[in-house]
Amino acid sequence: MQEINIQPLNNALDEQIKQKIDFKTKPLGSLGKLEELAFKICKIQQTLKPSISQPTILVCAGDHGITEEKVSPFPQEVTYQMVMNFLSGGAAINVFSKVHNIKLLVADTGVNYDFADYDGLLHFKINHGTRNFAKEAAMTQQECKQAMANGAQIVSEQLAKGCNVIGFGEMGIGNTTAAAALLCKYGNIHPDKACGAGTGLDAEGIKHKAEVIANALKLHKEVSSPFDVLATFGGYEIATICGAMLKAAELKMTILVDGFIATSALIAAHAIHPQVVDYCIFSHQSNEQGHRLMLEHLKASPLLDLGLRLGEGTGAAIALPILESAVAFVNEMNSFEDAGVSNKE
Amino acid sequence: MQEINIQPLNNALDEQIKQKIDFKTKPLGSLGKLEELAFKICKIQQTLKPSISQPTILVCAGDHGITEEKVSPFPQEVTYQMVMNFLSGGAAINVFSKVHNIKLLVADTGVNYDFADYDGLLHFKINHGTRNFAKEAAMTQQECKQAMANGAQIVSEQLAKGCNVIGFGEMGIGNTTAAAALLCKYGNIHPDKACGAGTGLDAEGIKHKAEVIANALKLHKEVSSPFDVLATFGGYEIATICGAMLKAAELKMTILVDGFIATSALIAAHAIHPQVVDYCIFSHQSNEQGHRLMLEHLKASPLLDLGLRLGEGTGAAIALPILESAVAFVNEMNSFEDAGVSNKE
Repeated sequence: MQEINIQPLNNALDEQIKQKIDFKTKPLGSLGKLEELAFKICKIQQTLKPSISQPTILVCAGDHGITEEKVSPFPQEVTYQMVMNFLSGGAAINVFSKVHNIKLLVADTGVNYDFADYDGLLHFKINHGTRNFAKEAAMTQQECKQAMANGAQIVSEQLAKGCNVIGFGEMGIGNTTAAAALLCKYGNIHPDKACGAGTGLDAEGIKHKAEVIANALKLHKEVSSPFDVLATFGGYEIATICGAMLKAAELKMTILVDGFIATSALIAAHAIHPQVVDYCIFSHQSNEQGHRLMLEHLKASPLLDLGLRLGEGTGAAIALPILESAVAFVNEMNSFEDAGVSNKE
Repeated sequence: MQEINIQPLNNALDEQIKQKIDFKTKPLGSLGKLEELAFKICKIQQTLKPSISQPTILVCAGDHGITEEKVSPFPQEVTYQMVMNFLSGGAAINVFSKVHNIKLLVADTGVNYDFADYDGLLHFKINHGTRNFAKEAAMTQQECKQAMANGAQIVSEQLAKGCNVIGFGEMGIGNTTAAAALLCKYGNIHPDKACGAGTGLDAEGIKHKAEVIANALKLHKEVSSPFDVLATFGGYEIATICGAMLKAAELKMTILVDGFIATSALIAAHAIHPQVVDYCIFSHQSNEQGHRLMLEHLKASPLLDLGLRLGEGTGAAIALPILESAVAFVNEMNSFEDAGVSNKE
């Protein structure tokens, strides 16, 4: 596995950051979570003048062998069709990225389709879909390592191009089943609690999905190391995102965490290196059952709760303007002294 | 009082709007509240191609006689000092408006200070602060009518300039006391529940504020018509915003509702003409105690819950990008058919 060297956040500027926020022309604490967010970004960047530079969302797409078990109401070909939709600019993540000035990259990490070259498409295919984890490990150790290294490489390249805030989205029919299995294993959660509707299962479908996971957990009960759990139940896109998040934390970038699948990648990253969470901002509470349990597992508080359950990084994209608000007030608001405004008596 | 003619929302396009949203390339309902928001904006605008045109925030400032009762930890002069801060571009609402491309207007509706002319300052002063409603009605009927008419005039002018989404902010030391009194009277709520910390009262201060309101409610117990309640307990900025909201609804504009004070103006508007709420989007749940009760009174569900309690329209400004996301997905996302993506099996 890639060597990871994530530094704990430095406390040296804490007092100065807090003071800068507290002396803005507003009642103390009156910007609520925006103040916490501003504090965190300042701390990650170790500065009193934070910035959001070339915010980027990387959408990783991959197929899943577990779809053989009929865990999704959509056919597997929707994964490549949606990648084509991303490349033509017509998907939700395209629209939200465009309206909020976010750079969008799409990576084929393991889609069951051979793509030609397109602008904005990164070729990091490991294989034409994972194996069916109801029968065998989804990935070989080598494949999983490679996917993580690919994610790390992409993030390093984006940092070099000037990006300091990066979010991750995904596309992969079947991947809520993989994510739910990861939650069960890392969080010691029962499949009945971890499984939700995904793209639109009914109650019977959700029950079936939970049974598939319960059986797979039995089959792979000997698997225990954080890395092996990821390789066994994860997916190429999830492993790529996991490696990307670890590298982003190592590089002191701000990580914008999306919904159920992206958070499953973070749970894996957290199991491998807990400090990764220090560099994360949780964009939203997804409506997919299990995401709340993931956030609890990570002791995370999300910015938005809009009932989203689309994936693709859409929650991260919609939350980016809130980060921009936080950074802007730190940099641009007057202090009481600047403005000649009387403070509290 | 101004004549108000607010039309109920037309249902004629409901099916078409719903269909347009449902056939976008995403699992059904997976954009959660963003779909409800998109639906509402389409319905207000009676179109399948909604737009946000020249979004504007009008900050109304006014002073309050009730400050004689020591209900705020900040001195009254902070109202005019903060207006000067708005005009110099250094307040929170300036920063958020700028970062989200919102046009910002500031109106002096009754500040206890005589302003010179400034770019972006609208002169609609009724008086140098209201009367102390612990002793007499805050406004005369004529003053309150004039303030409402002023708000209506400003909104009409903004519509003529191309604005179709308008939010309202406020500044006025003492105005959380006025807003809490309005909540008590319109919502039949006890002052102990309606009163919060405002700009930063301690527990004793909050208790005193609740007592001031309880006594005032006794003094003015005969006051009953929606308009008379507003004139008795409100403020110039609150009445101006109330008139502005009623006019905006009449003109079929989308109203972006901010926090505790702006919502108190809406509660007054709602008491005068309940249909006004059909044109409102509730930007956020404020951290000021009592705002939750206001939203319950209006059966409203807010977009954001970031623990804000600053006022100035800051919650409305921070929420505007969410409206932009909603409008953008309706206009720009592909349908399954457009994209050649297989729908649910």
